[in-house]
Amino acid sequence: MADTILDPAFERIRTEIDSLFDALLAVPPDPRARLFEAMRYAAIGAGKRLRPLLVTASAGLFHVDRQRALRVGAAVEAIHVYSLIHDDLPCMDDDDIRRGKPTLHKAYDEATAVLAGDSLHALAFEILGDDATHEDPFVRSELIGELARAAGPSGMAGGQMMDMVAAESALDLSAVTRLQQLKTGALIGFCLEAGAIMGRIPPEGRTKLRGYARDVGLAFQIADDLLDEEGEEEKTGKKVGKDRDQGKETFVTLLGRDRARQQAELLVAQGIEYLASYGAEADLLRAIARFAVERDH
Amino acid sequence: MADTILDPAFERIRTEIDSLFDALLAVPPDPRARLFEAMRYAAIGAGKRLRPLLVTASAGLFHVDRQRALRVGAAVEAIHVYSLIHDDLPCMDDDDIRRGKPTLHKAYDEATAVLAGDSLHALAFEILGDDATHEDPFVRSELIGELARAAGPSGMAGGQMMDMVAAESALDLSAVTRLQQLKTGALIGFCLEAGAIMGRIPPEGRTKLRGYARDVGLAFQIADDLLDEEGEEEKTGKKVGKDRDQGKETFVTLLGRDRARQQAELLVAQGIEYLASYGAEADLLRAIARFAVERDH
Repeated sequence: MADTILDPAFERIRTEIDSLFDALLAVPPDPRARLFEAMRYAAIGAGKRLRPLLVTASAGLFHVDRQRALRVGAAVEAIHVYSLIHDDLPCMDDDDIRRGKPTLHKAYDEATAVLAGDSLHALAFEILGDDATHEDPFVRSELIGELARAAGPSGMAGGQMMDMVAAESALDLSAVTRLQQLKTGALIGFCLEAGAIMGRIPPEGRTKLRGYARDVGLAFQIADDLLDEEGEEEKTGKKVGKDRDQGKETFVTLLGRDRARQQAELLVAQGIEYLASYGAEADLLRAIARFAVERDH
Repeated sequence: MADTILDPAFERIRTEIDSLFDALLAVPPDPRARLFEAMRYAAIGAGKRLRPLLVTASAGLFHVDRQRALRVGAAVEAIHVYSLIHDDLPCMDDDDIRRGKPTLHKAYDEATAVLAGDSLHALAFEILGDDATHEDPFVRSELIGELARAAGPSGMAGGQMMDMVAAESALDLSAVTRLQQLKTGALIGFCLEAGAIMGRIPPEGRTKLRGYARDVGLAFQIADDLLDEEGEEEKTGKKVGKDRDQGKETFVTLLGRDRARQQAELLVAQGIEYLASYGAEADLLRAIARFAVERDH
């Protein structure tokens, strides 16, 4: 369905992030060309760009310069894309299709996919370490510390390990919640926090944004589980029914479709409630929250 | 051979880095335990710790607090260890032995090895983003920018891609030099530069240290090529004769053993020459330069 706030916002951020990656990933005229081409294949021209949109939406609350917010958005998207590349490898999820086209190791080869993922990982911190991202080194350093924690073994990578172990053991609802809070929630939490960091809001002033991120992040994951059950490969751009085939517990297997959908809607309402003290400047964040459960991809 | 400066310095740094990783990688009591155990397996108890030694030796020239230099040393070692883990994967070099024990994907599994490498990669930036590494956020931010560049597609990862392409095309001496300057030289350059950054030496004051790093880094690589030809698996802790088996051009295949050895010795003399303006405080860096060509592992 058309959304007057969200549709143009998604379209704009997709163009901006593509153009930023295009500039950051200029192909050098030497044997590294193949590496840069592989990074471009994975990073440019596909993906919803939900994470950069969350960064700019959060930064917008605090009147942060958009070009700077976009650089932080590109950094977190680089981390997200690297994690998808490594996740898709034969030794991990062994996926052939991602964002509607062959996965990187299928289009190139496994070694190039490992290296391109590693390179996007380093690129994220190279972007954040650059003073074009923020003139205040304290802000840069805080962004880097937070992103590294969100991506590392205490965040996303730790969640992926829990997910691997999950295939061998039956998790309960609280374990699945914890897994997802690490695997996808930590990076989404960073997106909201990043806007506040750039806006020089001290940690104690970020509680509501963290609450929004936690609830909406979880709602997104529940909706992903529902799409994995009900979605169409053509629209999601990836294989569906995968979790069920692997015998993994998800919010849908644990709660059933109806209760899972209700839970996601409750979380979205809670997430929007955290924004009560903001006015129209938070309408984009409210629209993103609703999108979490209303989307078909 | 015994060296009164170098032997105790290597022994000390090995203990210090092991103990720092031991503290940083405390195993959590949840399903992430396997990930942290894999990170510990790869990061603790083995390796020369040449890169942390270079960081502390460089930092020592500028009276930088040793605990801070050690944290930067641990960060660069985390990057080095992650690159070894990913390099050893079946889709890359497919190695079974590293630092004298089974490679990580042999001791655990491939998926855990990918994730543990990714986690050590993030850990490096988490360490540098923490204010325990340096109280000045400008210093932290500069260290992070430099390390990300040295590790990423314009540095180490770019050199690895050139190395992969090298297996398919005959490189000449200048191409092999360029490849090695990226693949191993960029990170060694960071080690020397990091000491100066922590010592608040501006970029124009770091030229000599960069010259030392370039020459000694290349000498190390030539010596590695000689060890790959002549060395014993037991002492090097990895498979020897590998480059020759893969038909790759190295300094030894291009120059022959005698000229390669002469070239390495010349580079070491040049590297030491860059330290002429320093007194006894640079003796450790001089000893490390000599070690480059005199070692048997």
